[in-house]
Amino acid sequence: MTTTSAKAEIPATMRAAVLHGPERLTLEERPVPTPGPGEVLVRVEAVGTCGSDVHYYRHGRIGDFVVREPLVLGHEAAGTVVACGPGVDPRRTGRRVAIEPGTPCGACGECRAGRYNLCPGMRFLATPPVDGAFCEYLAVHQDFAHDVPDSLSTEDAALLEPLSVAVWACRKARVAPGDRVLITGAGPIGLVAARTARAFGAREVLVTDVVPHRLELARAAGASALDVSRTPLPDAGYTPTVLLECSGVPAVTGEAIRTVGRAGRVVLIGMGGDEIPLPLSRVQNHELELTGTFRYAHTWPTAIALVESGAVRLDSLVSHRYGLAEAEHALTVAAKDATAVKAVIHPQR
Amino acid sequence: MTTTSAKAEIPATMRAAVLHGPERLTLEERPVPTPGPGEVLVRVEAVGTCGSDVHYYRHGRIGDFVVREPLVLGHEAAGTVVACGPGVDPRRTGRRVAIEPGTPCGACGECRAGRYNLCPGMRFLATPPVDGAFCEYLAVHQDFAHDVPDSLSTEDAALLEPLSVAVWACRKARVAPGDRVLITGAGPIGLVAARTARAFGAREVLVTDVVPHRLELARAAGASALDVSRTPLPDAGYTPTVLLECSGVPAVTGEAIRTVGRAGRVVLIGMGGDEIPLPLSRVQNHELELTGTFRYAHTWPTAIALVESGAVRLDSLVSHRYGLAEAEHALTVAAKDATAVKAVIHPQR
Amino acid sequence: MTTTSAKAEIPATMRAAVLHGPERLTLEERPVPTPGPGEVLVRVEAVGTCGSDVHYYRHGRIGDFVVREPLVLGHEAAGTVVACGPGVDPRRTGRRVAIEPGTPCGACGECRAGRYNLCPGMRFLATPPVDGAFCEYLAVHQDFAHDVPDSLSTEDAALLEPLSVAVWACRKARVAPGDRVLITGAGPIGLVAARTARAFGAREVLVTDVVPHRLELARAAGASALDVSRTPLPDAGYTPTVLLECSGVPAVTGEAIRTVGRAGRVVLIGMGGDEIPLPLSRVQNHELELTGTFRYAHTWPTAIALVESGAVRLDSLVSHRYGLAEAEHALTVAAKDATAVKAVIHPQR
Amino acid sequence: MTTTSAKAEIPATMRAAVLHGPERLTLEERPVPTPGPGEVLVRVEAVGTCGSDVHYYRHGRIGDFVVREPLVLGHEAAGTVVACGPGVDPRRTGRRVAIEPGTPCGACGECRAGRYNLCPGMRFLATPPVDGAFCEYLAVHQDFAHDVPDSLSTEDAALLEPLSVAVWACRKARVAPGDRVLITGAGPIGLVAARTARAFGAREVLVTDVVPHRLELARAAGASALDVSRTPLPDAGYTPTVLLECSGVPAVTGEAIRTVGRAGRVVLIGMGGDEIPLPLSRVQNHELELTGTFRYAHTWPTAIALVESGAVRLDSLVSHRYGLAEAEHALTVAAKDATAVKAVIHPQR
Repeated sequence: MTTTSAKAEIPATMRAAVLHGPERLTLEERPVPTPGPGEVLVRVEAVGTCGSDVHYYRHGRIGDFVVREPLVLGHEAAGTVVACGPGVDPRRTGRRVAIEPGTPCGACGECRAGRYNLCPGMRFLATPPVDGAFCEYLAVHQDFAHDVPDSLSTEDAALLEPLSVAVWACRKARVAPGDRVLITGAGPIGLVAARTARAFGAREVLVTDVVPHRLELARAAGASALDVSRTPLPDAGYTPTVLLECSGVPAVTGEAIRTVGRAGRVVLIGMGGDEIPLPLSRVQNHELELTGTFRYAHTWPTAIALVESGAVRLDSLVSHRYGLAEAEHALTVAAKDATAVKAVIHPQR
Repeated sequence: MTTTSAKAEIPATMRAAVLHGPERLTLEERPVPTPGPGEVLVRVEAVGTCGSDVHYYRHGRIGDFVVREPLVLGHEAAGTVVACGPGVDPRRTGRRVAIEPGTPCGACGECRAGRYNLCPGMRFLATPPVDGAFCEYLAVHQDFAHDVPDSLSTEDAALLEPLSVAVWACRKARVAPGDRVLITGAGPIGLVAARTARAFGAREVLVTDVVPHRLELARAAGASALDVSRTPLPDAGYTPTVLLECSGVPAVTGEAIRTVGRAGRVVLIGMGGDEIPLPLSRVQNHELELTGTFRYAHTWPTAIALVESGAVRLDSLVSHRYGLAEAEHALTVAAKDATAVKAVIHPQR
Repeated sequence: MTTTSAKAEIPATMRAAVLHGPERLTLEERPVPTPGPGEVLVRVEAVGTCGSDVHYYRHGRIGDFVVREPLVLGHEAAGTVVACGPGVDPRRTGRRVAIEPGTPCGACGECRAGRYNLCPGMRFLATPPVDGAFCEYLAVHQDFAHDVPDSLSTEDAALLEPLSVAVWACRKARVAPGDRVLITGAGPIGLVAARTARAFGAREVLVTDVVPHRLELARAAGASALDVSRTPLPDAGYTPTVLLECSGVPAVTGEAIRTVGRAGRVVLIGMGGDEIPLPLSRVQNHELELTGTFRYAHTWPTAIALVESGAVRLDSLVSHRYGLAEAEHALTVAAKDATAVKAVIHPQR
Repeated sequence: MTTTSAKAEIPATMRAAVLHGPERLTLEERPVPTPGPGEVLVRVEAVGTCGSDVHYYRHGRIGDFVVREPLVLGHEAAGTVVACGPGVDPRRTGRRVAIEPGTPCGACGECRAGRYNLCPGMRFLATPPVDGAFCEYLAVHQDFAHDVPDSLSTEDAALLEPLSVAVWACRKARVAPGDRVLITGAGPIGLVAARTARAFGAREVLVTDVVPHRLELARAAGASALDVSRTPLPDAGYTPTVLLECSGVPAVTGEAIRTVGRAGRVVLIGMGGDEIPLPLSRVQNHELELTGTFRYAHTWPTAIALVESGAVRLDSLVSHRYGLAEAEHALTVAAKDATAVKAVIHPQR
């Protein structure tokens, strides 16, 4: 068993941005990992910052997931295969890949049923105790490093991760031609969901928010946009067949559910608050179907196809770019700049 | 166009128990209806009393449905066809039938999609302004008077209505072999749902309540039973794949949802309270699917088959029987007698 | 009960193209129908000719449906409401409408289940003994005369019927982003299906035929095109996830099914031949799902939305236009002119 | 890494029945396998013989699968864990287990989608080049050795494999209360399918065959039975909602499909013949849904539950029992004895 690589190119150590506790991020030198059996070593070339990264940075935890040991953040990653572990076709070296950040066990009941995102043994990047991608090299299982076509930029490849969130939500909601979709919250996920819902054939997509800049981006994504600080949602006269809830705000969620039409589908994507007030009589009288999403399963091939065909554009999401040494800027820009949408780190800079 | 009947048998007037306001029920003489085109006239021989009848009796309203005009209650009805309106095969006269109490418009988008229970133009027995079945004769559309086989008693035929609620819920929950079902609330619907879930193949059914007598009935229905006044549900160590919520109590609902396993299905059947506290992180992290039921659609043929085959028994539900003159007793017995399950009125007595 | 109309505009008689037997079509004067309860009277302004019209014209029958009495053909129709029968909102007068040609009973088991296209009591235009739309006025049930927005031409409105066939097929096949679709046969249905599959999000659509002109139209519809007279399908190296069979040729069907990938879906739309040779081992080893379509159910709203949004264009289908007196030309042009795709009759000319 | 076992009990070599070509079976001494990482070593205590074993024995091949190297047959196996490979909880030693005979790769697109039975990299017992279970010890992945409760006999545990075929078919057909099921062919799979369809809630199950003994077994399994040598199926007046085709005879299949009602589901389980004559117009006019089954996925937990609850009995299937030295008798008894249903080999005898 041998590892296949262009050894000359791979250094022994690399830089990584490591979180030691709330707002304590340091740039450190770490060993470059060796790809194990079935793994490839990826030179990380673009990593998006996600709200969960920001949350870990600020609070040192997300719910039950607590940063007890130093943790490398980042899970929206893409790059180039520079070495192949034992059992991997060496021709993968040199391929540009998008990284699917969760590796399930592949054998439990959830995995067998095709719901590998619910695998209790899932190892997910940047989720304690698994290190993430704010670093120069990453070893990942070959099946979770998806080859990307030339038409996708490396940033596009990294942003297939939030696109996967949207694809998964649209699948859960069974978005199809004829649907009227309501998206609450014009953050990065809401904006990608708007484009994705159109690509699934939705006849109409309405995005709500209170930030004019984000509403403008929603319009640019092919949606209608409603400033609910001016026109409350109940006054808009919109009866969606599908609600994709991306705000995570309990009151917004409850109000939005009350607008959904008969047999409508509600997918709760935004996180926040332990409980939401569910309008029972609306759910019953209209027989609404409601579910939540937890990451995604089997979405990368579809996400790649959506970008390749031009049905979804991801490049306009990127508002800020940083080198690895500037990771802290990337994690704090959203709090400082209302026009920030998605900051991308380029670790090789 | 002629009405086919054995005229001699049908009187000009009949008795009906009429609600004039909260706790104001009177026995009145009313004209026997004439079956219109496509309708049959049914001599009502058994009518179950339902929680909604009791609620109208006590409060004069259920939510937005207010008793403004005198209203005949009762919607769980069966009897014998005694006359056929124009366009109906006269051979239906003499047939024993179970009455499906809602007649949809048949043409709107909901009806076309097979969701006729959500038809905005639905006319439903004992729902203002449509009179119900606490009377001697009822005219119903021929397609909503379902022929019943000899093996079903007339009481069985009446109780196909609550069985339909349970069949609809089990369909919504996709109950199948291998499922572990939790039913919260051992009232009539919970008890019928327990039997129905077994008939759908569930490997295990656990029913919760706090009334020992009802828990005993749950055991007799082939379920396990948990007295949650002694052992709180979270301590029971039961992880259902399906929750059929029949209590209508918001706190019970929220607690029960927190026990449901990954990719589990939750169906909210019990009514009560405008909002329930939905545990968002459980719904998301486990990707629970949740919906509510509003009556039922296309369930009578299956309900009939379940009783005919012996898979579901309904007779043990009937705890009290009354004549029409005793309708008020039927509507109040549940409040007075803790062992009451289902009171049935026999209008022809 | 009154009929609402602008009486002055409606003549007592109208012209209709009547089929008396194979290749015996005559233009006749017939009474203008009076709209019954729930019906509207539509002035027919565009009617597409369909392969089934051509088949009736040539052979006087389609399978068990035999033209025993004189029959008016035509079922792809649109026009303007000129009168409303009893029970219809008179404000519908003046509305431009697309006609859904089948009126189901609304009450049978199939109708209740939302499968009204399978209603045994269906009355369908131009299917013996029900007259069709090659005439100047048609009375149809108000719910099957769908209002169309201004952005649709009347020809568009007529051609919502073949679009409905394609929408129904794509729904049956669950076409969604990520799918690779194979369409066998580039006739009008195949061409519309190609556009529709794209609108449902398919990543790739390949259409096969042997007529260069039709293949060119397939390319114009956004699909790839394969001339199987030059490159047999098995040599094309295409592994679809979905097959929409539009040729009706048994050998083509069998060959195409053998190319479908694991868990692929096959929808048989083309008619022809009583039996097709089903490759059992492919169906089993790949667990293909196969079904056929019979007309459509609940498709007009979605079809309208697809044209309105620009996702599907129908105008390029129309290759020939005729007046009512030229109906025979419309029915024979396809046999004479290889470039004919869809002939539309304008009865008011 | 260590292997956990009661070393004393496990010999170095074992007996195995090895197929060298058509009708050339020899009993040989082979090394007892060593369980690899994640594997358990199972002492095989019961193995059913399946039609595919008989076919390999007689013809040395099934379709494209050719016995080129000596092959051990047998894939319906159960026994006791006697050793655990590295990474396996040593407490599994001593557990009685049913063996799921196929081990998928766990990472390909089919596996990820929950269709692991369609995994191109599947390794399946007794399918060239993978040896099967007609031997004394077998090493299998821990996740495919399912613990069985005490209420199941070891023969029951072995026969969970054919029960899994039936569970998979009933899932594909979505058998549920209200369904009328037709099963063509009363061989072991047809008989198990009859019981399973009842356990899924089918209101009626009709089994067809021409062998009186098998029809008698069908009746004992709770089904109606039709001798189609006396009453051809089309004359029986039975309109199923579900067809489970277990005969593998093309003419039987075609005839049976023609009886299925509107929107009925057809599952092709029996193998035989490369093509079947598919009645196109029935499939289209009734919009039948048709699929085939290839083994099964995620069925053992449900199969175990069905036997444990008593909903399905498997013991009555076993008509003959043999020791390993009599494997050839087990493979030929069906051809000699018309009353044979299922022969089980007990390798430890």
